[in-house]
Amino acid sequence: MTALADHDSIRAVQWRGDVLRLLDQRRLPAEESWLECRTAAHVRDAIADLVVRGAPAIGIAAAWGVVLAAQTGEALTPVLEHLRAARPTAVNLMWALDRMRARIEAGADAEALQREAQVIQDEDLAANHRMGALGAALIDAGSGVLTHCNTGSLATAGYGTALGVIRAGVAEGRIERVFAGETRPWLQGARLTMWELVHDGIPAKLIADSAAAHLMRSGQVQWVVIGADRIAANGDVANKIGSYQLAIAARHHGVKFMVVAPSTTVDMATPSGEAIEIEMRDPNELLSIAGVRTVIDGASAWNPVFDVTPASLIDAIVTERGVIERPDAERMRAMFDPS
Amino acid sequence: MTALADHDSIRAVQWRGDVLRLLDQRRLPAEESWLECRTAAHVRDAIADLVVRGAPAIGIAAAWGVVLAAQTGEALTPVLEHLRAARPTAVNLMWALDRMRARIEAGADAEALQREAQVIQDEDLAANHRMGALGAALIDAGSGVLTHCNTGSLATAGYGTALGVIRAGVAEGRIERVFAGETRPWLQGARLTMWELVHDGIPAKLIADSAAAHLMRSGQVQWVVIGADRIAANGDVANKIGSYQLAIAARHHGVKFMVVAPSTTVDMATPSGEAIEIEMRDPNELLSIAGVRTVIDGASAWNPVFDVTPASLIDAIVTERGVIERPDAERMRAMFDPS
Repeated sequence: MTALADHDSIRAVQWRGDVLRLLDQRRLPAEESWLECRTAAHVRDAIADLVVRGAPAIGIAAAWGVVLAAQTGEALTPVLEHLRAARPTAVNLMWALDRMRARIEAGADAEALQREAQVIQDEDLAANHRMGALGAALIDAGSGVLTHCNTGSLATAGYGTALGVIRAGVAEGRIERVFAGETRPWLQGARLTMWELVHDGIPAKLIADSAAAHLMRSGQVQWVVIGADRIAANGDVANKIGSYQLAIAARHHGVKFMVVAPSTTVDMATPSGEAIEIEMRDPNELLSIAGVRTVIDGASAWNPVFDVTPASLIDAIVTERGVIERPDAERMRAMFDPS
Repeated sequence: MTALADHDSIRAVQWRGDVLRLLDQRRLPAEESWLECRTAAHVRDAIADLVVRGAPAIGIAAAWGVVLAAQTGEALTPVLEHLRAARPTAVNLMWALDRMRARIEAGADAEALQREAQVIQDEDLAANHRMGALGAALIDAGSGVLTHCNTGSLATAGYGTALGVIRAGVAEGRIERVFAGETRPWLQGARLTMWELVHDGIPAKLIADSAAAHLMRSGQVQWVVIGADRIAANGDVANKIGSYQLAIAARHHGVKFMVVAPSTTVDMATPSGEAIEIEMRDPNELLSIAGVRTVIDGASAWNPVFDVTPASLIDAIVTERGVIERPDAERMRAMFDPS
């Protein structure tokens, strides 16, 4: 745990030697309750049921699931497959499990696997601190920022990606105003990001997603800072629905747009955003709120979960490897595929 | 009542000779219940409590409130003041009450006042049908449209303003796809517009407000069609929060942007949107949903209700007097202040 002066006190995935403690994100902000997982199957269910969410956090939890299986003497190959199926589209989940698989194939025992899981978790935290410093350095003193969805300690080993940049920028005195979009339909901004910010003593204001352009026009924000689910080889970014709309509004107002994500989010095999399939989810996520039906029976909805922001609308992509300003295929290649 | 073939079966403000029936919009879509008002005080409370909402509908209801007062022999001057205070910012409320006051000052009895209220209601319905025809004529066959908030039968004497254009465009076979933004924080799009569209047999899909740009990029919509709360002398439009963001996204994608409102919404005394004060509302509207607290205690929110769309982002302003394409101060003056 880091001191509150760093605005960084939350660790939602905690290893305790023979048990994995997970902060139950389904119950936030109403309740801070912890789930204790002692088997890989329990970890798998926690991932599938969204107890833990956020691509890096999912990958870390799954790695610890493999350790639990090794400690209890389970056959590890089926465990890897079972964990992989918990959230089939999460790239970081596959990446973390591939790392654990490589160690298993190299003959690692439970103790060695525990060390590998710890490295995965530590590396994620270190990458976040590095991205925080790199991203914050782009922001002028006295700035306001707007973020979207949740990219913080809850979604990672700690500190966060886009929210890590905000933590660093606030700690350095560069950022004076923080705004968070509520992020319909799941309300990750309202439920999770505001919980983190209040918890860590960062003054912030929630806005309706549709108030972002009006906020930009008011002059209160100089940067939009968001995370990424996948970054294509030309710098196009797939992220939570609403990101693209923010990028258009930001460009219209001369507000800068920053994407913050670990390099594992970059997929050089995807040439551009055109090649990214956008997941469509259950219309009922829009037809009810907090379990209350808000729309007439018989109504339908169009519910894409992600959208693609073209590289041309992005001012900076920040990974732990460095900053790419005005990203394009050439600059992406120079950093991520310099062969 | 008009046939369902016209997609126009809803009348939310119904005069019955000695009682005003109001469809209780607070309970939609869960329940269709009607409030029966027999006194001006009852009508005043219904307006203040949002039983009836939408600027034209509020004005009409208030006019009937004056009629009820005249029928029961109340002193009319205090009644006019009492009704005027029910929603202090609704321009149409003042306009309708000023019309009734003029008749009172001319010596009108209860029966004459009843005729005047009926004229106000009939004129609004006629204006909506006229705007529907004018607006729909701008839309090419095979188009898709996106609307925001509720501008339909529920907000007017019937048919609606922007939603009237959509009713007309669907009836004429021009509009093939209708999308409605849910309109946080009050969810008028989700709760009311979807209720109207399903009720009147118009196939439509609800979207998260932040999915609009992604929808435009998909090529499914050719027009954004919205209402207005106030239109300034240079064509700037104040409307529900989120309208401005839609206008920016529409321009970015080459999607056209139409504003539909009766000429009483035009305020030639307001030179531009800069002069329009934007109402800020209770942050709690964003911190809870459907009575359930969704954000951590101690969090705050920034909650503007309206925003201003500059005339430069608007392709057409439609009133019952005609269409102004690419509005500016000169074209507005030519139609609304031709002296």
